Amino acid sequence: MSFANLNSKLETLVRERDWDQFHTPENLAKSISIEAAELLEQFQWNSDPDLEQLRDELADVLTYCLLLAKKYGLDPEALVLTKLEKTKAKYPVEKAKGNSTKYDRL
Amino acid sequence: MSFANLNSKLETLVRERDWDQFHTPENLAKSISIEAAELLEQFQWNSDPDLEQLRDELADVLTYCLLLAKKYGLDPEALVLTKLEKTKAKYPVEKAKGNSTKYDRL
Amino acid sequence: MSFANLNSKLETLVRERDWDQFHTPENLAKSISIEAAELLEQFQWNSDPDLEQLRDELADVLTYCLLLAKKYGLDPEALVLTKLEKTKAKYPVEKAKGNSTKYDRL
Amino acid sequence: MSFANLNSKLETLVRERDWDQFHTPENLAKSISIEAAELLEQFQWNSDPDLEQLRDELADVLTYCLLLAKKYGLDPEALVLTKLEKTKAKYPVEKAKGNSTKYDRL
Repeated sequence: MSFANLNSKLETLVRERDWDQFHTPENLAKSISIEAAELLEQFQWNSDPDLEQLRDELADVLTYCLLLAKKYGLDPEALVLTKLEKTKAKYPVEKAKGNSTKYDRL
Repeated sequence: MSFANLNSKLETLVRERDWDQFHTPENLAKSISIEAAELLEQFQWNSDPDLEQLRDELADVLTYCLLLAKKYGLDPEALVLTKLEKTKAKYPVEKAKGNSTKYDRL
Repeated sequence: MSFANLNSKLETLVRERDWDQFHTPENLAKSISIEAAELLEQFQWNSDPDLEQLRDELADVLTYCLLLAKKYGLDPEALVLTKLEKTKAKYPVEKAKGNSTKYDRL
Repeated sequence: MSFANLNSKLETLVRERDWDQFHTPENLAKSISIEAAELLEQFQWNSDPDLEQLRDELADVLTYCLLLAKKYGLDPEALVLTKLEKTKAKYPVEKAKGNSTKYDRL
């Protein structure tokens, strides 16, 4: 299964339900935050999530991310890869090793 | 580029910096929420995001999602696909068409 | 200092800057989530927040909450008090004692 | 009703249920984000919130903010007031008037 394949399946789901009218970039961005918080709720009081709920909420975050990426014609894998290169540059191994400090304080 | 490929690149980034110690599932879940809010910040006062920042923040959300999925041995594409089938069942076309109401109120 | 006093000070700040045009209920709700995530960032990798930043971010969450409450003519203290009574009813002491389980699973 | 009054009522609620063990600063910060997202959910697809749910979710955000403030011995009104003065300094009227741009780009 590739993301291109997923995209066409998501497209069908959305088109059949005429949901595209609700999927403005702004509404998708809100939805990503909302689902991210439902995922976080699995860790609200302890570190012992319900795994089925974790899978569902993580899937929801990813789904809205894919829908938002598509709105802007962005390829999710390419996005991650490009950012990974930026992160490498901002956090050189010799400075960042074993350190969770943000780059602007390294 | 597939997600499997991405995973090995992310693994290298993390291992070289000895960051795995910070990447508990709980910390990754918090990070997803934090980055989702930075993405939302692009839409805080209007619908006109800075596209470079949008790409970066969306990439951050996706990256932490991939790292969390890996912690539980989950395949991101399979997660999305499984949830999509659940969504189809919860939102039958005849009820959900043109409707943003949550399934428990449909 | 009471909340009534705060409200008139916030009102002046907003009016002098002509910011009310940006403060739709929806934008304020987004802002609360955004600031809540900045507060959470103080606990992203450990339990050792920078206290000045914690104070600032907590103040930001509270400020947007007050602005949103005012939009709907709601009194913040009364809101908290009313919800507290609901919480008491949903979580009777004998069931909830020492238990972080959500009421619908108690 | 003042916040001092609210605090003693919240204290009783928490003590009777022996919930203080769950209320670490980190868990409270997560809870603020989670409740903020539930509030945002009222604006996920449109600007027409259910007012009872809005009141409940706003109350939840405020409640966890009060609990977190108390953990650090902070006075909520003083926090807001202090931050308001910082905001005035960061956003002078002549620069910020009618402008939603962040201070570092003004």
